[in-house]
Amino acid sequence: MSDLQSVRYENGVLSIIDQRFLPGQVIIKTLDNDTDIYEAIKSLAVRGAPAIGIAAAFGLCVVARQLESLSADDFLKTLQDKADYLNSSRPTAVNLSWALQRMVACSKGSFRNGVSVSEIIEALEKEAFAIFDEDVAMCRSIGEHTLKLLKPNMGILTHCNAGWLATSRYGTALSPIYLGKERGYNFKVFADETRPLLQGARLTSFELMQAGVDVTLICDNMASYVMKQGLVQAVLVGADRITRSGDVANKIGTSGVAVLAKHYGIPFYVLAPSSTLDLNTESGSDIHIEQRDSSEITDGFYSQRMAPDNVKTLNPAFDVTDNNLITAIITENGILNLKNTKG
Amino acid sequence: MSDLQSVRYENGVLSIIDQRFLPGQVIIKTLDNDTDIYEAIKSLAVRGAPAIGIAAAFGLCVVARQLESLSADDFLKTLQDKADYLNSSRPTAVNLSWALQRMVACSKGSFRNGVSVSEIIEALEKEAFAIFDEDVAMCRSIGEHTLKLLKPNMGILTHCNAGWLATSRYGTALSPIYLGKERGYNFKVFADETRPLLQGARLTSFELMQAGVDVTLICDNMASYVMKQGLVQAVLVGADRITRSGDVANKIGTSGVAVLAKHYGIPFYVLAPSSTLDLNTESGSDIHIEQRDSSEITDGFYSQRMAPDNVKTLNPAFDVTDNNLITAIITENGILNLKNTKG
Repeated sequence: MSDLQSVRYENGVLSIIDQRFLPGQVIIKTLDNDTDIYEAIKSLAVRGAPAIGIAAAFGLCVVARQLESLSADDFLKTLQDKADYLNSSRPTAVNLSWALQRMVACSKGSFRNGVSVSEIIEALEKEAFAIFDEDVAMCRSIGEHTLKLLKPNMGILTHCNAGWLATSRYGTALSPIYLGKERGYNFKVFADETRPLLQGARLTSFELMQAGVDVTLICDNMASYVMKQGLVQAVLVGADRITRSGDVANKIGTSGVAVLAKHYGIPFYVLAPSSTLDLNTESGSDIHIEQRDSSEITDGFYSQRMAPDNVKTLNPAFDVTDNNLITAIITENGILNLKNTKG
Repeated sequence: MSDLQSVRYENGVLSIIDQRFLPGQVIIKTLDNDTDIYEAIKSLAVRGAPAIGIAAAFGLCVVARQLESLSADDFLKTLQDKADYLNSSRPTAVNLSWALQRMVACSKGSFRNGVSVSEIIEALEKEAFAIFDEDVAMCRSIGEHTLKLLKPNMGILTHCNAGWLATSRYGTALSPIYLGKERGYNFKVFADETRPLLQGARLTSFELMQAGVDVTLICDNMASYVMKQGLVQAVLVGADRITRSGDVANKIGTSGVAVLAKHYGIPFYVLAPSSTLDLNTESGSDIHIEQRDSSEITDGFYSQRMAPDNVKTLNPAFDVTDNNLITAIITENGILNLKNTKG
C-alpha cells in the first residue's frame, strides 16, 4: 500500500500526483520552490483537506532548506513570511492554515541560544512527518473501527472521493476498503460517478483500481438499481461537516443515497475525522449550501455544451443528510450509532 | 403550441427536427426519398416511439408520391417493398412496424377496380394524418387526465424525455405540463439531466424552454435536494413497459426518483399510452434489463474520457419501479390509482 500516496517527501524533495490530469495521466510533479507549492494548492493539483495540509507542511520544509544560509533570526522571520504566502493559496482551507501554524510554532519553539538553522530545519521536518503520520493513524483508525461493521465479500457503495488521493494514505470513507484489501476481505465496490464534477469517475475509481480493489463505476442514478439487485450491503461516505444533531453535510447526492439505503434496508455509514464535528451548528437546516456555477452542469466535461444556452440550473455543491437516515458516524475515536436502518 | 412538432408533413413534404444536433443547433431536415427516411430513423435523427411511427407513415406517403406513374398493381407491390425497407431501419421498434403495417393495409384496402394510383395516395395521406391525429388525441388525453391531479404553481420533477420531441405533440409525461402552460398553470419544472445519455439536459430542458415553460436543469443526484427543499409537489415520468402488477420499466434512474418521492411524501405519477401495458408480463422481476456500452459512462459526452482506462462499469438502460412506489398510472383511458404515498 505504501506507494499509494498523493503527497510524498523524501530526502528533502516534495512531489505530488497532479490530480488535475487524473485519470488520463498520472503526472508526478516535483515542487521545489514556494511559488510552485502555492500554485499546486491554488490550482487543485493537490486537493483534499488533509492532503493540502500535508503538502503545505512538507512545502515549508522545502522552503526552509533553501534558507539554510540565513541567520537563525532572519530564517525565522522569512519562514513566517513564506508560511503566510502559502496560506493565502486557499484562504478557506482550514487544514492548510492549521498545518502551517503548527509548523511556524515548531520553528519558533526550537529556537534557543546557539541553535543552528539546520537544527531548526531538522525539527521542522520531524514536525511535518508527525503531521503526516498522525493523519495516517487517524485514517487507519477510522478504517479499523469501520471494518468491525463490515464482512468479507460485501458489496459497498461510495459517493464522491474520500480516499488516499485526498489524505496521507488510506483516506477516510475509503480507509476500511483499503484495510480490507490488505486482509483479503474482497469487497466489491460501486463508485457513484458524482456529477457534476465526476470525482467518483475520475478519482475514486482511479485510486481503487491502483490499489487492486474490485470497483465498478456507475452513474449516480444507478444506485437504486444496484441496491435493488442486492449488490450492496453497506454505504460508506465522507462528510464535510457533522452537526450536533448528527445531520451531515457532504457532496451533493449524499442524501439521496441515504434515502435509497434506508428504503432497501442497507446500513449507511458516515466516516470522517473528529475535526469534522461542528458543535457550533445545531442541525442541517443551519448549514448554508454553496451554489456553484451553471457551467459545471451545462458544459461538456471537457468541451461542448450539453444543455441549451441560457437554461436555468440549480447547482448545490452539498446536501444535508438527516440523522435518521444515518446508521452510524465513525471517527478515529470510534463508532457513534445513530440508528439501525434494517428493515 | 402548434409549431412544437418534431415531425411535420405539409404539401407532400416531410421534415423533421434532427434531434442529434439538439440542443446546440435546431436543424430542420427535409426527407425526400426512402434512403433519407431510413437513415433518419436508424441514426436517431428522429427518436421516440410515436414520433418514429409518424415519421415512417408520412415517409411512406413521400415514397408513394414518387411512384404515382406506376400501374396500381406495380404501385402496391413497390410500396410493400419500400415499407419493408423502412421497417428494417429499427427492427425492434414496435411503433415503426405497427404504423407501416397500417399504411400498407390501407393501400391494399383502397385498391378496387378502376381506382387510380393518386386516389390510393390520397387514402394513404389521410391514413398517415389519422395516425398523427390519434397520437395527438392520445397525448392530450393523458395530459387532461393528469392535470386533474395537479394544481397551479406546483413544482414538478421529471426524468428523461417523454415530450413533444418524441411524439406528435405534447408528449406523454410532459403533456400535462404543456396543457397546463396553455391554461396558465405556471408550473415550475425540474428536469433531471438523466445520465448517461443526458436526455433531460439535451432534450427535455430544450423542448420545455421552446414552449416557454419555466424549467430548471439539475443533475440526477440533486433530486433529493430539491425535494427536501420543498420545491417539488409531483413527479411525472413516462414508461417503457408496465406489467400486470403495475411495476414499471423506464429509463435508468426512475426507481431512485420514486423512492425519493415516497420518502418525501410526494406523489409519483407514471404517464404512458395504454399500449405500454404488457399483460403478458406479470411483474418487474420478469423484465430483462438491457446493459449498454461502458463508453456511455466513461467517455466524455463529446470527447475525452472521464474515467480510467479499463474501469469496470455497470450501464443498465432501464430500471424497474415497484408498484408500491407509484401513486397512479395515467393512460389516455384514465387514472389507475395504485396507492397514496402521502406521509
